[in-house]
Amino acid sequence: MISPRVMRALAAPVLGHLDPDLLAMMDEMRDQLRRLFRAPEGSFAFAVSGTGTSGLEATVANLVQDGTRVLAIVTGYFGDRLAQVCERYGARVTRLEVEWGRACDPQRVREALARQGADIVCVVHAETSTGVRNPVEEIAAVAHDAGALILVDAVTSLGGHPLELEKWGIDAAYSCTQKCVGAPSGMAPVAFAPSALARRVKCRSFYLDLGLLEDYWVRRKYHHTISASLVYALHEALTAIDEEGLEARWARHERNHLVLTAGLEAMGLGLLPPVGERLWTLNAVRVPEGVDEATARKDLLTRFNMEVGAGLGPLAGKIWRVGIMGHSSSPQAILLFLGAIEGVLRLQGHRVPPGAGTAAAIAAIDG
Amino acid sequence: MISPRVMRALAAPVLGHLDPDLLAMMDEMRDQLRRLFRAPEGSFAFAVSGTGTSGLEATVANLVQDGTRVLAIVTGYFGDRLAQVCERYGARVTRLEVEWGRACDPQRVREALARQGADIVCVVHAETSTGVRNPVEEIAAVAHDAGALILVDAVTSLGGHPLELEKWGIDAAYSCTQKCVGAPSGMAPVAFAPSALARRVKCRSFYLDLGLLEDYWVRRKYHHTISASLVYALHEALTAIDEEGLEARWARHERNHLVLTAGLEAMGLGLLPPVGERLWTLNAVRVPEGVDEATARKDLLTRFNMEVGAGLGPLAGKIWRVGIMGHSSSPQAILLFLGAIEGVLRLQGHRVPPGAGTAAAIAAIDG
Repeated sequence: MISPRVMRALAAPVLGHLDPDLLAMMDEMRDQLRRLFRAPEGSFAFAVSGTGTSGLEATVANLVQDGTRVLAIVTGYFGDRLAQVCERYGARVTRLEVEWGRACDPQRVREALARQGADIVCVVHAETSTGVRNPVEEIAAVAHDAGALILVDAVTSLGGHPLELEKWGIDAAYSCTQKCVGAPSGMAPVAFAPSALARRVKCRSFYLDLGLLEDYWVRRKYHHTISASLVYALHEALTAIDEEGLEARWARHERNHLVLTAGLEAMGLGLLPPVGERLWTLNAVRVPEGVDEATARKDLLTRFNMEVGAGLGPLAGKIWRVGIMGHSSSPQAILLFLGAIEGVLRLQGHRVPPGAGTAAAIAAIDG
Repeated sequence: MISPRVMRALAAPVLGHLDPDLLAMMDEMRDQLRRLFRAPEGSFAFAVSGTGTSGLEATVANLVQDGTRVLAIVTGYFGDRLAQVCERYGARVTRLEVEWGRACDPQRVREALARQGADIVCVVHAETSTGVRNPVEEIAAVAHDAGALILVDAVTSLGGHPLELEKWGIDAAYSCTQKCVGAPSGMAPVAFAPSALARRVKCRSFYLDLGLLEDYWVRRKYHHTISASLVYALHEALTAIDEEGLEARWARHERNHLVLTAGLEAMGLGLLPPVGERLWTLNAVRVPEGVDEATARKDLLTRFNMEVGAGLGPLAGKIWRVGIMGHSSSPQAILLFLGAIEGVLRLQGHRVPPGAGTAAAIAAIDG
């Protein structure tokens, strides 16, 4: 769900894309995004006019060209996607494959880079397909030791998990608006640190060309007709983040993840990733033996108006992906989910200790 | 301005991008868009998740590759942009340059194709930078005679001017949502006729890959997280078009263009393009001698809350671009504009017959 204040902003009367009021809002948004990414002075943070996938492609299209050596860390569906897009842009990609459901050990990155150098290391911070958090800070250090840039997918982490472009030395990152940032989808926050700006390549795409996008965002030279509605919504969501405080927001996501986990455990439901590798924002819940996961998802949607994600690839049928992020990272959403999942499990004759999930969650909230 | 019904749709609660209700809306939208483009059976009509420029790039990226021979008809800023994007995708582009403010004579296209064949002819139907309508039907016939595909920019014509993909034999076209279609910006309607689908090339872009987009829109295979908010708004705008009737909508745009022109002429203001080459949707008004156009635009915005476009390129300082399209193609908007422009011209000491513009427009409405 999106907060009422952001929905109200979305529906404000549309301004022309060159209106001074809209341009001022875009200027402010660049600052807000730089703060959100914790990006260093001199970074270029803005939002691509497309979904998170367009943000992925924008970072790749401006840093990768024919022959660029990429080490792609693949811990799930979105790591694979990042590798694929690098290949489309001509990179020589080496894949470091990690078992789905586990994080990448930085030591493996060090070894891979020792065997074979790379110009760029790509990694997904929060792997939406498995619920796993990769140790990006450590991986960034390893990449820099080897003289490579590090490009980070922050789709399911930005605004929900600590992410520190400056402190961790991340060169470029992209995200989306509809997850932890709390706006509708349709724009893709991206940030290029000065180190990445200095190593940009000639971009084949016109729509995603960093130089043209800088001309547009910074020097106000026409490039495309940005969606005023989506700018209002994103600006309002970013303002709400500033008001909450980024660290308080991270803490809220962690706290609510622990509340959810307590409830799930009391119901006998486990998570796929081990403790320490789990996302706070996307919880990969193991489907219990004997339960039909698709029926359960359908029942959640039709009976309780709750959508959870299915497992992808090798995890199809094995997990539910439960997003607890942005405005929906709240005790209310968790209690509703725990009640609903108990209901749909009972429908399938699966035995659950009555009310145990809710009780454990309430105790965890108070604790 | 956008109609209240579309703004209400925009602000509806956000559904997940795989929600059955949203998928049903997308299916309906494909049919609506095919009707709007008047595209033949077997066409693939959908909306790219980006602005009109992403629609431009999506058509080019799937039809143009290294060595493709393109004849690009350049009658203004957007014709030039289309040629540029073809070059980025590796085409060998021949430009047919036409004086800004005039339409392209199909005979010149015939001659150019006789001198040198082409795989694709590109043309802008409604050149937003000059207010000129190109004779796309005739140009399409010439292109087909020479065995070339024809790719049409319909950004400022779709929903406002007659555009007939099937009848005119147009192979591919793209547009935007915020002009004559009447929704906020952020999506790009595109249509590929079967003839274009059959001649697609390997696409380097992941975000704009036609095959992946077909998998997503037709076979519901995940590709990106479409903006439910923008889908609601576009779907509602397309429903309003169906209700109005496409031909009635074209007639409304023509009628209101004539009302505006009558008012402007009575005030001594002329249009740049000659009669017969004028758009109904974007009116390029010549700035009278001695008037500072930028000041006038600023006064229109700050005093009357009306935005008009500036001249681009060789037309900078020489014209105002007055959009009368979608919900804003209305007698009310025209009367407001005529009163406002009279006011801002007077502020600069420019002599205008008092009330003459408004009087002539009212007479034209009644006539």
